[in-house]
Amino acid sequence: MNVLVWNENRHEQENQVVRDLYPEGIHGAIANFLSEDHENVKTATLDEEEHGLTDEVLAETDVLVWWGHMAHDEVKEEVAEKVKQRVLEGMGLVVLHSAHFSKVFKKLMGTTCDLKWREADEKERLWVVDPSHPITEGIGEYIEIEKEEMYGEHFDIPTPEELVFVSWFEGGEVFRSGATFRRGKGKIFYFRPGHETYPTYYNKEVQTVIRNGVKWVKNTQTPTPVYGNAKPLETITTK
Amino acid sequence: MNVLVWNENRHEQENQVVRDLYPEGIHGAIANFLSEDHENVKTATLDEEEHGLTDEVLAETDVLVWWGHMAHDEVKEEVAEKVKQRVLEGMGLVVLHSAHFSKVFKKLMGTTCDLKWREADEKERLWVVDPSHPITEGIGEYIEIEKEEMYGEHFDIPTPEELVFVSWFEGGEVFRSGATFRRGKGKIFYFRPGHETYPTYYNKEVQTVIRNGVKWVKNTQTPTPVYGNAKPLETITTK
Amino acid sequence: MNVLVWNENRHEQENQVVRDLYPEGIHGAIANFLSEDHENVKTATLDEEEHGLTDEVLAETDVLVWWGHMAHDEVKEEVAEKVKQRVLEGMGLVVLHSAHFSKVFKKLMGTTCDLKWREADEKERLWVVDPSHPITEGIGEYIEIEKEEMYGEHFDIPTPEELVFVSWFEGGEVFRSGATFRRGKGKIFYFRPGHETYPTYYNKEVQTVIRNGVKWVKNTQTPTPVYGNAKPLETITTK
Amino acid sequence: MNVLVWNENRHEQENQVVRDLYPEGIHGAIANFLSEDHENVKTATLDEEEHGLTDEVLAETDVLVWWGHMAHDEVKEEVAEKVKQRVLEGMGLVVLHSAHFSKVFKKLMGTTCDLKWREADEKERLWVVDPSHPITEGIGEYIEIEKEEMYGEHFDIPTPEELVFVSWFEGGEVFRSGATFRRGKGKIFYFRPGHETYPTYYNKEVQTVIRNGVKWVKNTQTPTPVYGNAKPLETITTK
Repeated sequence: MNVLVWNENRHEQENQVVRDLYPEGIHGAIANFLSEDHENVKTATLDEEEHGLTDEVLAETDVLVWWGHMAHDEVKEEVAEKVKQRVLEGMGLVVLHSAHFSKVFKKLMGTTCDLKWREADEKERLWVVDPSHPITEGIGEYIEIEKEEMYGEHFDIPTPEELVFVSWFEGGEVFRSGATFRRGKGKIFYFRPGHETYPTYYNKEVQTVIRNGVKWVKNTQTPTPVYGNAKPLETITTK
Repeated sequence: MNVLVWNENRHEQENQVVRDLYPEGIHGAIANFLSEDHENVKTATLDEEEHGLTDEVLAETDVLVWWGHMAHDEVKEEVAEKVKQRVLEGMGLVVLHSAHFSKVFKKLMGTTCDLKWREADEKERLWVVDPSHPITEGIGEYIEIEKEEMYGEHFDIPTPEELVFVSWFEGGEVFRSGATFRRGKGKIFYFRPGHETYPTYYNKEVQTVIRNGVKWVKNTQTPTPVYGNAKPLETITTK
Repeated sequence: MNVLVWNENRHEQENQVVRDLYPEGIHGAIANFLSEDHENVKTATLDEEEHGLTDEVLAETDVLVWWGHMAHDEVKEEVAEKVKQRVLEGMGLVVLHSAHFSKVFKKLMGTTCDLKWREADEKERLWVVDPSHPITEGIGEYIEIEKEEMYGEHFDIPTPEELVFVSWFEGGEVFRSGATFRRGKGKIFYFRPGHETYPTYYNKEVQTVIRNGVKWVKNTQTPTPVYGNAKPLETITTK
Repeated sequence: MNVLVWNENRHEQENQVVRDLYPEGIHGAIANFLSEDHENVKTATLDEEEHGLTDEVLAETDVLVWWGHMAHDEVKEEVAEKVKQRVLEGMGLVVLHSAHFSKVFKKLMGTTCDLKWREADEKERLWVVDPSHPITEGIGEYIEIEKEEMYGEHFDIPTPEELVFVSWFEGGEVFRSGATFRRGKGKIFYFRPGHETYPTYYNKEVQTVIRNGVKWVKNTQTPTPVYGNAKPLETITTK
């Protein structure tokens, strides 16, 4: 199983706070804990050629994890389109935090993916609303993060196929912060936490959820539908 | 269109605070504002014969609104079963607050319908998470209630078919507080607010949601399926 | 309430069979029966300026009905984008038959919207799988169409929020032929039947479903969410 | 992982055709192929004490497979209730064919679970409508069964959380034949095929789906919610 962690890797270049928190980049921090589960965890970033997402790389990727924020617009249209197609073909996708506004996620959702936000060091509690879901394995009733950016409803996404977490924020908002979607043969998991100026990706429970999410979106050998003009079937040839 | 507001009407007998708030009973207060929309709004209570839910009454009821709390167990099994059957046949059902634990709702859900609760005069904000839903007509982005009982996740219900509101509570919890379900030909709307010691049912926005809910659960003249042994159809008679 | 029926209107120009069936165009036939319910039913077609979908027209349209097939690619990207935005803002959308491949529908779904098809004069039965849904008002357990084009699974759409009809075809396929979706404030209804060489839009039950669909997707005065940077709320000002 | 295959085991006693097809009982045939995946596969039948479903047996069962038909009424109310509770606590449940009418399934669904049926040796095609679902691993676009009992819509169940298969029948009906549900911490998979007079459980693709289903309903170590009166949280103690 091949996991690829993609990060735009810009805040890390421009902001000392972020660089200090994530000296190997957000992608490096995420790849580190995913390596506990998988042998083949690689990373790719915006400034690499083709953003590090060549046809070859995409073809061999089973699960793609995506973090982006300030440079969504710099992701080339054709690369975003190729990533979307790979998801429809069965590549799993884990979308983190501000990647709600990434081209890939918006194309797959069909909505604006807009939301409310506030940077005010607020406490967040992510409550489990579906305790039957494998993505919640190994955590408690809720995850508490001492300080995070607030994301609030309305979150303009299609109704999630499974709603796993709902966040509570100190300032008075709620947010559907763990949600799954299916598109074609691909499974998608959106998970809210992870603002670049907080050490969120070192939180063990946050790591557990992302690790579970990567496993959950992994496609199995499910059937590949055939589309287009279908031959007359036996049943109607007798007419 | 015939609307019936059912209330166990016990707190009103035993608690002066509740009696002062709702001198005509919670059912009376709800029936009052529903009468702005409908000519035929009646009430029924636990201590009436057959709890006021005779076959005749149920047969002519289009929408039933249910409030209960301390006396769920006193609702006769056969009455609860009859109400459930009427819902499956197409009677709309609006389930309010502590009626999450009513026999009728539990039978229709198939789960424990359990939840967390706390009486601490907490502020509640009910956020709209589906702004396309007619149940949200005429209200703003959220409804704020200054003091209410807290209900918290996990709320042990089947995944709602539509999730309309999610509540935020001052003390740190969230709750899926407006949710719809379909059972047979019947539509069901669960709406959280309405603890007996608060004037919640005088809140204009809460009233608007309940009025919208009553309209939404109203069954239209949809098809009545035929069950059981189906005749061989023409297509297979040639065999 | 303003209803606009859009049709690419090309088969009618090029194919005598279609012209004989629909002398006023498919849009004309649909507008005719919708006029029984609504005073303001207009039509627009591909070859009009801006495809008849100017900002003014879109702004005043409550529900848009869309039929297209051979000329999806000729719909201008910016017009398709504007229509999508209006749906997210709350304009209802009814998508008919081969419009599954329209730019507007694909943008809103995020998938290929591909399917199987066969032109073999097959019998279709559209079975009601949700008899509580208002879109089924006034019809029976199923609608039978003597001859139609076959559409078969897998239909590459996101999981419908409500599945209302499933079609059976003589040749051995099934299809999710009546399905609803919510995007932003907009409601969408996809309905399968209506190949251009059959008199399907004169079928009274098909008309009933489309009439119900138009009513169902009509947006009510639901809240308009505010997005972006949210002010600190009172609760956290004390810190 | 402990799997228990439960069967009422009555047709096998009374009908020579069934006995010849399933000399070890339907439970024996199912347990055989499940043993290829799991070491601990046991069986239990109606006529055993407590139907073979003692507290001890249920406590150690991870996944229960259920087949019943002619003797649903003989399943003791208290046993059915205990099985339901175990599902809510997290035991996986695979419900086969005529077990749609079992007490356990009806209690968990809250509906009549009624349907159409016909015994006419009809061909069935189970089409995959969700090719992203792990339950479809290893099969093709559809499963064809040469002769089976027909089950037709409307199937009176709550909207499935995931719809995986839709069946086509020669005689003109369709059926939602593979569907998942979540109740409490428990996952449920209903799978249609398996009338007692056909060799359906020897069909390799049917076996594959049941094997996948058993794996899919298996509960992981997800959180156990705490219900009831919740302590005041820190956030509100400062008031």
